[in-house]
Amino acid sequence: MSWVQIPPAPPIPDVSQLEDGEISGLRKSTLPLTKHNLLVTSDLIDQHSIKLLAKHATVFNSTQLAEDEIVKLLPLIDSLMIFSWPRFLTPERTRTMTRLLFVQSILAGVNHIPFSYFSERVIVSSNAGAYSDGVAEHAWALILAAAKRIVEQSIQIRAGTAALVRHGDAAARIRVLQGKAVGILGYGGIGTSVGKLATGFGLKVSAFSRHVSKEKGVQVRHGAKGLNKNLETSDIVVLALPLTKSTTGIIDKKALSRMKKNAILVNIARGELVDESSLYKHLKANGDFHYATDVWWYKNGRESLVTDFPFATLPNFTGTLHVSGPSVLAVGRPVLLAVQNTLRFLSNQTPKNIVDRSEYIPK
Amino acid sequence: MSWVQIPPAPPIPDVSQLEDGEISGLRKSTLPLTKHNLLVTSDLIDQHSIKLLAKHATVFNSTQLAEDEIVKLLPLIDSLMIFSWPRFLTPERTRTMTRLLFVQSILAGVNHIPFSYFSERVIVSSNAGAYSDGVAEHAWALILAAAKRIVEQSIQIRAGTAALVRHGDAAARIRVLQGKAVGILGYGGIGTSVGKLATGFGLKVSAFSRHVSKEKGVQVRHGAKGLNKNLETSDIVVLALPLTKSTTGIIDKKALSRMKKNAILVNIARGELVDESSLYKHLKANGDFHYATDVWWYKNGRESLVTDFPFATLPNFTGTLHVSGPSVLAVGRPVLLAVQNTLRFLSNQTPKNIVDRSEYIPK
Repeated sequence: MSWVQIPPAPPIPDVSQLEDGEISGLRKSTLPLTKHNLLVTSDLIDQHSIKLLAKHATVFNSTQLAEDEIVKLLPLIDSLMIFSWPRFLTPERTRTMTRLLFVQSILAGVNHIPFSYFSERVIVSSNAGAYSDGVAEHAWALILAAAKRIVEQSIQIRAGTAALVRHGDAAARIRVLQGKAVGILGYGGIGTSVGKLATGFGLKVSAFSRHVSKEKGVQVRHGAKGLNKNLETSDIVVLALPLTKSTTGIIDKKALSRMKKNAILVNIARGELVDESSLYKHLKANGDFHYATDVWWYKNGRESLVTDFPFATLPNFTGTLHVSGPSVLAVGRPVLLAVQNTLRFLSNQTPKNIVDRSEYIPK
Repeated sequence: MSWVQIPPAPPIPDVSQLEDGEISGLRKSTLPLTKHNLLVTSDLIDQHSIKLLAKHATVFNSTQLAEDEIVKLLPLIDSLMIFSWPRFLTPERTRTMTRLLFVQSILAGVNHIPFSYFSERVIVSSNAGAYSDGVAEHAWALILAAAKRIVEQSIQIRAGTAALVRHGDAAARIRVLQGKAVGILGYGGIGTSVGKLATGFGLKVSAFSRHVSKEKGVQVRHGAKGLNKNLETSDIVVLALPLTKSTTGIIDKKALSRMKKNAILVNIARGELVDESSLYKHLKANGDFHYATDVWWYKNGRESLVTDFPFATLPNFTGTLHVSGPSVLAVGRPVLLAVQNTLRFLSNQTPKNIVDRSEYIPK
């Protein structure tokens, strides 16, 4: 039995030669860690990045290890890079990671991380901003697809039921954005990037945010009143909020009722920001209201295309397959930024994007 | 028999009391036109605009006149506002409009105007720029729909054959625009507006244009070499050219073969810029090449959804129903600008957007 090491790596404690009890004893006291032990749990991290990380840590890759090997390794690990939370990290096994100090998410959000599994001293860094511009592109694809009724027309053309629009009512159903108002709920990296593009399209931009108080040309609002004002005055509402205890279901029946009857609601954040049942009823009752989303509700702990209501049958629903983040991931930037931030931890600098665990729902 | 006049209108020559011959005689010599006689041929022009025009001209509206009334009126008309070229203006009847001096198009382009029907001294003004920002919005809707495969995913979701994209090949098929290159063929009002938004999306912008030589941050190219360079280096090519003798079929087999195999070609100008047969073969042979269009080829003198090849069956084809211009028209700006320009003519100022008839195909 041998650990799969990612080159180039210095000698590490040969834990495979020890009995389980001995390893436990060592980790509980003073195993002389001359280097950090980093466990990466995703094949997304390229060889060049691994080499950079290996200058500051012994790097293990769980995708190249047997499960029993991983289990023995966990007590030695002090830093962890994850994409989605790995299935092998059950509550019991995570509790054996008593040296754990740092978790770096490659995903932008951290709501998938089970904070209750590990100690409060563990620093968790999100990958906020890594996907911002790319996800904002997708938000714009959804906004414009809804405004210009791209899917509806394409389906009509494919079905042979379409007619060219010259002017009149059919043309008036296509929305011109210039001069309209967009409200961006959540004005972090993604929200800001969505907002910058909005200005280019000649839209008035307002935002709902806890943190930001001023932004050039953007009306930033706070609190329940600010949220309501954004909902009431916006022709387009973009959800770019993190999913936290206070944002789950933020778009409920009441919030929907405040919105313009012909508003476009775009979700590029998390399905659970929107109450599924209320949204379905609202879409059925308001044919000019449009919901365009890249993200879906969780069913049995996983984001799922299976919904409680037949959204896909509605003409005022546009959906994509949670491609916004993955498409950005495919071009490399999020991994690069996650690696850079992990290098900060490994070289004793303060990592960026440290999250406040108290904001996240206990799992 | 009485002329339907749009109020408020001053007395006009009572041509209904004259014999045809008499009218002819008068118009050939010195009918004392104290005011201009303007014929509007579209109901798009609102009452407020009619009132403004009526300060400088006697305004007739062909949609409120019988055909024989129109025929008698034509020799008196010196200015014409048209949307599409009116069917009642046959070659013979147009030749009777010997006082005609000015034609204002409400449509942006003038390729629908039969220049051969009337004298070269007639000034024809396009409505260039009136639709620019709105049509650019639609160009972006098409670019993003193609890049993010919005229609393909929506159809899969509706059919129940979709799966969420996490990472890997499916994610890599979704294009991230940031850092890519867009080539804009035709850098007039629409092209410029498309280009401004491109900068916001982090794209490198190049253009192909006869006129423009410099634009901040935009590489403007000229001539056949410039065209080829744009085709070869662009990830996205946007057609925003007027349809003239020299641009008809500009995207032919050879041009397509110069483009990147996974390029996105967007057409917001005129179907005939692209050779239909060559495009179909190219789309069939290159699954990663995408054609997204709002405009269609003319069949029997009318733009038509009936195509010579089954484009709508192709996954790498996205079409809309020529909604870009009409949707802008529906919010009023093009009529406003056409009226303002006609007022320039009527008050003896030089109208804007005078077109060079030699550039247009004889009809």
